[in-house]
Amino acid sequence: MPDSKLQIVPLGGLGEFGMNSMALRYGDDIIVVDAGIMFPESELLGVDVVMPDFTYLEQHAEMVRGLILTHGHEDHIGAVPFLLSTLNIPVYGTEFTLALVERRLEEHGVLDQAKLNAVRPGDRIKLGPFSVEFIHVTHSIVASVALAITTPLGVVIHTGDFKVDPTPTDNVLFDLHTLADYGKRGVLLLLSDSTNVDRPGYTESERAVRPRFEELFSRAERRLVISCFSSSIHRLQQILDLAHEYGRKVAFLGRSMLNVTEIAHSLGLLSIPDSTLLRPQDIMQMSPEKVAVVVSGTQGEPMSALSRVAVDNHKHLYLQPGDTVVLSSRIIPGNEKAIYRMMNHIARRGADLVYGTMKPPVHVSGHASEEELKLILNLVRPRYFVPIHGEYRQLSKHVSLAQHLRFAGLEDTFILEAGETLEIDHLGARRGEKVTVGRVCIDSGSLDEVVEDIIIRDRRHLSEDGFVLPIIAINKNSGRSEGLPEIVSRGFVAGDNTAILQEARSVVARTLETSTPEERGDWGVMQEKIRTDLKRFLSKETQRRPLIMPVILEV
Amino acid sequence: MPDSKLQIVPLGGLGEFGMNSMALRYGDDIIVVDAGIMFPESELLGVDVVMPDFTYLEQHAEMVRGLILTHGHEDHIGAVPFLLSTLNIPVYGTEFTLALVERRLEEHGVLDQAKLNAVRPGDRIKLGPFSVEFIHVTHSIVASVALAITTPLGVVIHTGDFKVDPTPTDNVLFDLHTLADYGKRGVLLLLSDSTNVDRPGYTESERAVRPRFEELFSRAERRLVISCFSSSIHRLQQILDLAHEYGRKVAFLGRSMLNVTEIAHSLGLLSIPDSTLLRPQDIMQMSPEKVAVVVSGTQGEPMSALSRVAVDNHKHLYLQPGDTVVLSSRIIPGNEKAIYRMMNHIARRGADLVYGTMKPPVHVSGHASEEELKLILNLVRPRYFVPIHGEYRQLSKHVSLAQHLRFAGLEDTFILEAGETLEIDHLGARRGEKVTVGRVCIDSGSLDEVVEDIIIRDRRHLSEDGFVLPIIAINKNSGRSEGLPEIVSRGFVAGDNTAILQEARSVVARTLETSTPEERGDWGVMQEKIRTDLKRFLSKETQRRPLIMPVILEV
Repeated sequence: MPDSKLQIVPLGGLGEFGMNSMALRYGDDIIVVDAGIMFPESELLGVDVVMPDFTYLEQHAEMVRGLILTHGHEDHIGAVPFLLSTLNIPVYGTEFTLALVERRLEEHGVLDQAKLNAVRPGDRIKLGPFSVEFIHVTHSIVASVALAITTPLGVVIHTGDFKVDPTPTDNVLFDLHTLADYGKRGVLLLLSDSTNVDRPGYTESERAVRPRFEELFSRAERRLVISCFSSSIHRLQQILDLAHEYGRKVAFLGRSMLNVTEIAHSLGLLSIPDSTLLRPQDIMQMSPEKVAVVVSGTQGEPMSALSRVAVDNHKHLYLQPGDTVVLSSRIIPGNEKAIYRMMNHIARRGADLVYGTMKPPVHVSGHASEEELKLILNLVRPRYFVPIHGEYRQLSKHVSLAQHLRFAGLEDTFILEAGETLEIDHLGARRGEKVTVGRVCIDSGSLDEVVEDIIIRDRRHLSEDGFVLPIIAINKNSGRSEGLPEIVSRGFVAGDNTAILQEARSVVARTLETSTPEERGDWGVMQEKIRTDLKRFLSKETQRRPLIMPVILEV
Repeated sequence: MPDSKLQIVPLGGLGEFGMNSMALRYGDDIIVVDAGIMFPESELLGVDVVMPDFTYLEQHAEMVRGLILTHGHEDHIGAVPFLLSTLNIPVYGTEFTLALVERRLEEHGVLDQAKLNAVRPGDRIKLGPFSVEFIHVTHSIVASVALAITTPLGVVIHTGDFKVDPTPTDNVLFDLHTLADYGKRGVLLLLSDSTNVDRPGYTESERAVRPRFEELFSRAERRLVISCFSSSIHRLQQILDLAHEYGRKVAFLGRSMLNVTEIAHSLGLLSIPDSTLLRPQDIMQMSPEKVAVVVSGTQGEPMSALSRVAVDNHKHLYLQPGDTVVLSSRIIPGNEKAIYRMMNHIARRGADLVYGTMKPPVHVSGHASEEELKLILNLVRPRYFVPIHGEYRQLSKHVSLAQHLRFAGLEDTFILEAGETLEIDHLGARRGEKVTVGRVCIDSGSLDEVVEDIIIRDRRHLSEDGFVLPIIAINKNSGRSEGLPEIVSRGFVAGDNTAILQEARSVVARTLETSTPEERGDWGVMQEKIRTDLKRFLSKETQRRPLIMPVILEV
């Protein structure tokens, strides 16, 4: 199909933070890059996980050739089990990324059917008209890649998540040469990570945390308890090396920490010095100055190992005065209160706390800052540029950055949000038709538990002012109401049994009395009338708007 | 009473962030320092304001001699109207602080009776056995003071909120000399601000924002829209001065911005250069490069001026491409999402955004960092030290700091949380009896709307899984249930009308059938049995725990 156009279809992660996923379509062939989840905002009450709506892919199921993963963070792979459960397409990613995916697939019982294909940086795969080369990048998780996707219209570079770390702990540098080669030969479109576009300068190297950790290992007089993301293999490697150097044994605590370190170790990505490992059950038996414990739970998740340690509710570790607890991670927005609460508990145990604001740092970001983003733009010097991975303010800053660089060849930039598409053909690039996208909210990690918007709206409403339910018993023979209406209520006014609710009963009774026989014959009408009258009454008396739901009972 | 003891009774702000208030008692005399509110955590659903429980003061009403205010921030004065409505005690504070209090008292209709007494730094007042000297300190709001409270047992220094700004914009320095004098003569107890104890070094001077603002004023090609806290008079002064220098007129937008600037201007604390002011209705008529607009709403409050400007819903200002919007403030934890949303809207209008992470700074903190806190400890060199204003982790860091300094004379340090008291007599200091403290939650800023804990618990429960109400009609003659039970539900499962609810009806019917006649005669028992059975069923089927509230209707 020589006249076909290339369509860029963001399914998530553009104009929002998390749940990254993007489809590329050429003619009747579609490939998908990443399928991530997002952790819900607190407004989505009771929702545990949010993922992209994959309707677009389901509608074009016969065209979808495969899913390509850039790296193993949840905001890039978390929705894979959900996507594969409806579209069992082949999946491509590095060994470590796929190992993390396997764990998720197993939890959802869909591992057996999955078609997983491991690739290495430098490999190329062909999917319909697309040819994809994997390019090694540096990021906070190992085995991250960018993608060079060759299409009949030109090359699309998708950076995935990255920073340009000049001194990565494993000495494997960002493959800037390959990227430069593509740039030299001409790139049609660059899709680049915008997460840290508002940070000036360069993101510090992962090695920047070493001086502070060295100080902690050399000076801590008792147990060192360190929490970081379990997928931060580089960080874990530095901790293991320092522990070995300073004569401490290391225990891992927390399910994800144990799982991920085992995977990384088995793939040769995490080297554990001889006789360094300590079993969790032996932590409290060892002399405190000989122990380092690495625990999951940096975000104050209530059931995480660190949260339980903080309140003296962990089987294998309790804190004692003089212990040092290090939070080697950032605070994901929305988790502040939970993390501060956990820190207060840790302080109450008499442990010293080391965390974010202190210098030298105990954590560095995995995303590129302004100068690194400029470097990538200048190396790739694409004809078109679409920033990815960020809210609108970040995407628009990234576009300004590209426009200010004035490298040769840039024809246009586009800010796309999920559902907005870009179309490229031999005449150029332009905005295309919108497609159906959105969010699917899941209550507890299984697809059976999709939460509809209406449910969340109800929960929000309930959370603000509670509910008031007038209950009217109607005699099915006479069609008349029996006795005074009942009112039940929770979360509304103190006591839930006060004068106001007594008065409300009379309001409902009056509505019933003053209705015509026709109205009384139509329950829908009666419910609406009761709701309206009661709403007016309660709002006037209390300035509050509880959820009102009249119930008519035939007896 | 020569044998009396001095009691330090924190009523709020110790072990929590905000709603600062503390009582000092000697014999039968009590004074109160500050009466602030706290903005609620998102867990307190539907609650607008949280303030300390003043039961302790009400129980000792006849002993309370007065309320002393250190400065005019809401977390120090916000609860004054509530406190005065039950205890009309005299209030002491600087002119500007009292002017802000007056505004609040007026809103609550209690200004007429209030006994407000303006003081200046250097003044002393006598309240029973207490003599209080006001000491000028530097902070992000003007007219802030620390207190030197002389008691029969010795001097207590209460710092209020402060930083040690070596170059304040009004050139009025922190009165370190007076503090040093007290230190030299001997201080019994120091109560010192712990807010920024986890920041190393010195907090930057308020003047540190000037270079960046200078750059913005000199380079912005169109309108400059700046948002900061309305009480940051120093910041506003710098903006006014720069506007004058660079030939821009200044308009103020937002109720609190207009109020507070008017108060500050009338007290001579804010000098407005001639013909600099612009009326809001004239903003869009002026040439854009001649206008600066100062708006309230840095925290993304939904009804604030800036939030309305961000969505093109303000009468007097709409943003245009090329305008610059500056957020000259910090993000108060918990407000991240609202602020980011507002920023995205602003970016969508095509305006450039300048905010926190960028350097040089557009905002600096008003609280002392580690080195300043050390300076105060060394100058005051108290016999006892109790850190104030902070969560446990901050209080405990502040105590470690004091212990590491090893200045002469420090006998003991205490971490007190609200309700825990300290007792000092001629033998020394020790923990005293606990007193009743707590939080009072208010739904919409008036004392009539106190929200009980149970209501908030219900709302939280409702917000997570909604509710399920089984309704059983009982014939009052036969005592038997009529027909199959009804179930109404909201916020629980999709559709709220699914198979699960049908099954739930059978579960309730079975509970009714299998109950003995005695049980059926006792509605309380029946409600509990139904609740238990239904809870088990729903939790097994859905892993969720909606609020279940059986209703038994006599017909």
